[in-house]
Amino acid sequence: MDKIFITGAAGFIGSNLVDRLLANGKTVVGWDNFSTGQRKFIEGALTNGRFTLVEGDNLDLPALTKAMASCDTVFHLAANADVRFGLEHPSKDLQQNTVATFNVLEAMRANEIKRIAFSSTGSVYGEAALIPTPEDAPFPIQTSLYAASKISGEGMISSYCEGFKFEGYIFRFVSILGERYTHGHVFDFYKQLLEHPDRLKVLGDGSQRKSYLYVQDCVNAMLHVMELGTAKAARHGVEIYNLGTAEYVQVNNSIGYLCGVLGLQPKLEYSGGSRGWVGDNPFIFLETKKIRSTGWKPELTIEQGIHRTLEWLQQNQWVYETRSHK
Amino acid sequence: MDKIFITGAAGFIGSNLVDRLLANGKTVVGWDNFSTGQRKFIEGALTNGRFTLVEGDNLDLPALTKAMASCDTVFHLAANADVRFGLEHPSKDLQQNTVATFNVLEAMRANEIKRIAFSSTGSVYGEAALIPTPEDAPFPIQTSLYAASKISGEGMISSYCEGFKFEGYIFRFVSILGERYTHGHVFDFYKQLLEHPDRLKVLGDGSQRKSYLYVQDCVNAMLHVMELGTAKAARHGVEIYNLGTAEYVQVNNSIGYLCGVLGLQPKLEYSGGSRGWVGDNPFIFLETKKIRSTGWKPELTIEQGIHRTLEWLQQNQWVYETRSHK
Repeated sequence: MDKIFITGAAGFIGSNLVDRLLANGKTVVGWDNFSTGQRKFIEGALTNGRFTLVEGDNLDLPALTKAMASCDTVFHLAANADVRFGLEHPSKDLQQNTVATFNVLEAMRANEIKRIAFSSTGSVYGEAALIPTPEDAPFPIQTSLYAASKISGEGMISSYCEGFKFEGYIFRFVSILGERYTHGHVFDFYKQLLEHPDRLKVLGDGSQRKSYLYVQDCVNAMLHVMELGTAKAARHGVEIYNLGTAEYVQVNNSIGYLCGVLGLQPKLEYSGGSRGWVGDNPFIFLETKKIRSTGWKPELTIEQGIHRTLEWLQQNQWVYETRSHK
Repeated sequence: MDKIFITGAAGFIGSNLVDRLLANGKTVVGWDNFSTGQRKFIEGALTNGRFTLVEGDNLDLPALTKAMASCDTVFHLAANADVRFGLEHPSKDLQQNTVATFNVLEAMRANEIKRIAFSSTGSVYGEAALIPTPEDAPFPIQTSLYAASKISGEGMISSYCEGFKFEGYIFRFVSILGERYTHGHVFDFYKQLLEHPDRLKVLGDGSQRKSYLYVQDCVNAMLHVMELGTAKAARHGVEIYNLGTAEYVQVNNSIGYLCGVLGLQPKLEYSGGSRGWVGDNPFIFLETKKIRSTGWKPELTIEQGIHRTLEWLQQNQWVYETRSHK
C-alpha cells in the first residue's frame, strides 16, 4: 500500500483519509467530480508533492482507468449518499453507486490493481431482526434505494474477489461524524439553529436510535485491518466489517448534546412517526465485535464525536453557504 | 391480475408462463428481445387473440414503458442467465440484469403498475453456511456476478415496495428443468452424448450437489402465492420465497438418470475439483418450508423432472441448432 487511489477524495471521509495517508508518507491520487466534494478540504493536500488531484467522474470509465494507473490500492468512497432522497431521483443511486462501483472495479482490472476498500453502510441490514446487528445477520430485506445500491456494490466487489482474486475490504459504516462533516442530522440541526435559535424541526418523533462514529476512528479502522491484510486469508478474498461504536443514541439525546453546547433551549417541532422518512430505519446499532477483535477501538464516544463535529461546524460555517448553492 | 406483462416471454420459463396464463383466460403482453428467446416457444400463444408480442429490449426504457401500458401485473423474467460466463463479460450482468430491472421498475412506476414477480436465484446465498438454506439465512457473501446482479435486482424491488407501495414477489429459484429447457447441465450433457455417445465431459468431479425444479411446478408456485396475495400484508410489501423441491441430487446421479434413459454407458471425463467453474457452488439445497406452508407442493421429483426434460430435448433437437448459431 504505497500509491493509493481514492474516489471521493474531496469528500468528508475521503479528504480526511487523504490527509492521513499523506501524513503516513504515502503517495495519493485523489479523484473527485466535485458534485459534493469541497476544494477547501484538499487545500492542504494540494501543497504536498505526494498528492495528485484528478478531476473526473466515475461514469467516465476511460478517464477513471487512466487516472488509476500505477496505483496499488483503491479506496472507493465516492457515492451518492443522499439516502433520504432516493425516491425522488431513483436513477441516482443506480448510476452513482452501482454503475460507478462497477466502473471502479473494471478500471482496477485494466490496471491490474487488486486491493480495494469500499464504504458500504449499516443501512444494508434494512430494519434488522437482530440488534446489535452482526455482519452475518439474517439476510435482510432492503428498504432504501441507497442501501440497495450499496449491497449491489458489495456483491460486485465480492464477486471480483472470488473471480479475479481481488483483495476486498468492505466497511459497513454507521453515520460518520467529525471534521468536514457536511451532511446529516447534526449538520441539519445546527443549520436550523443558526437561522432560528428558538425552534428546531425534527423528522419523526425523535425516538429513533442511531449510531455514529468519529471520522478519525473510521479512518483508523480501515487502515488498521488493511495493514493486517485480513482479507488475504479470508474465504473468497473478502472481509466485511461493521464500523461503529459499542453504543447508540436517541435523536433526542443528540439534540440534547447540541443544545447543551450551544446554550439553547429551542422549541422542538416533531414531524411525528417512528421514522424520519420513507425507508428511514428507527434503530441502527451494529455489532462491532469483529473489527474490535482485530485490536481496533474507537477513541471518541458518540457524545464526544458530536461535540467535535459541532466545534468544526462553528468554525467552518462557509460549508452551509457552499451547500445551499446546490 | 387480468392483463399481465412478461419480460423474457419467449424464454424457457416465460413462454411456459405465457401458455399457462392464456389457458387461465388472462390477457398477456409478451416482451422479449430474442437474444436467447425462441419464436417457436410462443407460436401457440401467437394464435391466441389474448396474446400480444412486443419485441424490445429492457435497456430501451421508453419502448418498455409504452409496451407495459394498461397492464396490472409484471413478471420480470428476462435476464442474462449465463452464470458461468460472468467473468468473461462482466458488464453483461450489470446491464441485462441490474439496469434492466431498474428500467422495469421505472416503466411500472410510469404506468402506475404495482404488482411485480421477479425471478431471482438460490445463487444469492453464495456458498451458504446453512443448508438447507432458508430465506433468512445468514447474510451471504456473493461469489458470482450473476448472483450479485440478482441481489441488486431484489434490493431495488424491495425498495420500490417500501417507497412506492409496490407489491413484490421475489422467487429464488433452484435450476429449473422441463419443456423448452435450453440451458444447463442436462442440456449440455445430452448435446455431448448426441455428438459422441461413448464419452461425457463433466465439469468438476461430479460430486456437486444441486437442486432442480420442474418448470410447471415453478409456474404453479408463482401463481399460487400471487393469487393468495401474500405480499399485500407482508412487512415492506414484499415476500421472498425459495422455490425448489425438498431434495437434491449429485451431478453424478443426474448423469446416471440420463444414461439410464438413453441406454448409454459413456466414459466419464471429469475436469476435477469440487467446483465446475469459478463461482460454482458445490452444494445448493434451499429450504422450501415457506412456500410449502402456503399449500403449494411440487408434482414432480428431480428424477422425474430430468426424465421429462430429456424427453422434450429428444423431441426438439432443433434447439441445439438454434443455440449453436450464437
